[in-house]
Amino acid sequence: MRTELLAALKEADDYISGQELCEKFGVSRTAVWKAVKQLREAGYVIEAVQNKGYKIKSIPDRLSESELLSIRRTKWAGCSIFYYDTLDSTNTRAKQLAEEGCPTGTLVVANRQDAGKGRRGRSFTSPEGDGIFMTLVLKPDINPNHASMLTLVAALAVSAAIAEQTGRPAGIKWPNDIVMNGKKVCGILTEMSAQLDYVNHIVVGIGINVHNETFPKEFSETATSIYLETGKHENRAELIEKVLERFEQYYAVFMETEDLSGLVREYNARLVNMHRQVKVLDSKEPFEGQAMGITPHGELIVDTWESRRLVSSGEVSVRGIYGYV
Amino acid sequence: MRTELLAALKEADDYISGQELCEKFGVSRTAVWKAVKQLREAGYVIEAVQNKGYKIKSIPDRLSESELLSIRRTKWAGCSIFYYDTLDSTNTRAKQLAEEGCPTGTLVVANRQDAGKGRRGRSFTSPEGDGIFMTLVLKPDINPNHASMLTLVAALAVSAAIAEQTGRPAGIKWPNDIVMNGKKVCGILTEMSAQLDYVNHIVVGIGINVHNETFPKEFSETATSIYLETGKHENRAELIEKVLERFEQYYAVFMETEDLSGLVREYNARLVNMHRQVKVLDSKEPFEGQAMGITPHGELIVDTWESRRLVSSGEVSVRGIYGYV
Repeated sequence: MRTELLAALKEADDYISGQELCEKFGVSRTAVWKAVKQLREAGYVIEAVQNKGYKIKSIPDRLSESELLSIRRTKWAGCSIFYYDTLDSTNTRAKQLAEEGCPTGTLVVANRQDAGKGRRGRSFTSPEGDGIFMTLVLKPDINPNHASMLTLVAALAVSAAIAEQTGRPAGIKWPNDIVMNGKKVCGILTEMSAQLDYVNHIVVGIGINVHNETFPKEFSETATSIYLETGKHENRAELIEKVLERFEQYYAVFMETEDLSGLVREYNARLVNMHRQVKVLDSKEPFEGQAMGITPHGELIVDTWESRRLVSSGEVSVRGIYGYV
Repeated sequence: MRTELLAALKEADDYISGQELCEKFGVSRTAVWKAVKQLREAGYVIEAVQNKGYKIKSIPDRLSESELLSIRRTKWAGCSIFYYDTLDSTNTRAKQLAEEGCPTGTLVVANRQDAGKGRRGRSFTSPEGDGIFMTLVLKPDINPNHASMLTLVAALAVSAAIAEQTGRPAGIKWPNDIVMNGKKVCGILTEMSAQLDYVNHIVVGIGINVHNETFPKEFSETATSIYLETGKHENRAELIEKVLERFEQYYAVFMETEDLSGLVREYNARLVNMHRQVKVLDSKEPFEGQAMGITPHGELIVDTWESRRLVSSGEVSVRGIYGYV
């Protein structure tokens, strides 16, 4: 009832009478009033004016299953939502749900993450309630060797969603960091459980710094938040929905060919490394060169003085991206 | 104490006095007697003769942590053993343990499996207590794209271990089924949890039909057990230990180059498909040809009339392997 009422109030965008709501949902006035009360307790500002009805005045930046479901515009992404106030790691929870047989598109969202996971088993401290911590479960019938490309699909979705919501560019640092003004605003951790030739499931974990006003000193040079870059506090539920919408769209393109051939152009347009000097670190012999975009398989093309090289994984250090617009 | 006593009795292979055992372990005669009693209750036949001491007469074919640890000859495989009378699936339990941070080499063993997992999410019914159900946890620092080769390493280990224990050939049907006289005696299911360029863990599940005297009608043409092929009831703990020993040996060779180049010759020598007609089914266009062994990356080389093709995954149907010795 809460979810439906919220959706109706948002859709109306004006006063909607109690009578109308009763008829719409086939419930009593008391039931409507009860749901309004619950929403108010959850932080929504709902005006009630005699002879006019209810109108939603302000939506709290609070994540909840109801809030997320009430604005859902996707077909399958976020079909089932598991929201937690605090969670050790949304990826860990998503993997548990996937093992238990949850459907593809299941979304885990937390308001706060205690023991976030970084790449290569490193731990990752998440600031309290200042961001988005979400993990999407996928069960595609694809070759496990192609699964790593999905992390680039996710990067594309987050980059597009942030740019759309804020009106500011949010570029991709290959393969899957999102940066604003050269500083990292989002990290993505994709994990897969697979058999020889069969994907059990893939979890795509996305962490976005949204409201942070400061960062610990050791990160202040390299990390930023949407608030720090734009001066505005964006609604997190809306941003999550935009990420899911974009992900669905790009995922469909990916699945057509099971590679990135239909997405290379847009990815390269968002790639902050494009035509810049990069240093490839995680290799037996580190080297430098000019990044020339990605291949349809997600490798980074790097031109050195001698030759063209393809970088398929590892950490790439990017120089000179400050001032990127 | 049970484990240590068992190991001492087995090592002695003759009578060993109570006094000697007391001194060896620094415990009382009562403590020794108690441990003997426990072992007898577990099915071991231990003779006690005055003035001579204890001697082990027969080892039950019963799996247990004590039994497995008492015969352990490996360096790291089976360093930590989780034994269960009944388990839904040893792979599922192993994946949980791996997520919780268990060390590489951890072994899960069950006497009986309720909901065994087959390939591509299919379920797999395990006959009651008639076989070996084991899963080994690995945490190698390798490229996730190379992990699927480990399932061929496991096949090699099982093939060698069965041949060693029974004196009969046990061939490999590419990529990882083990067959005796053309019928399947062992299945292997390897699963991996990975990030973009980092392996979280790999679980290698091995199911061997050991004592089965019959099979359901639908499997009687294709499945067999060690007992049916040899007429002998092999000791399962000893067979598990042999598998682990061989796995450790082949795994070390694999890790040197992170591929199968050091194992191709032995794998091909055990490959029942070798030089035989095979039908490649799981491909857009099925085709037939002659199997010519594997590549260093584990692909099956198939020569058709027109060309040489490499099969990297999927199901290969083998014709004419009945009567293979």
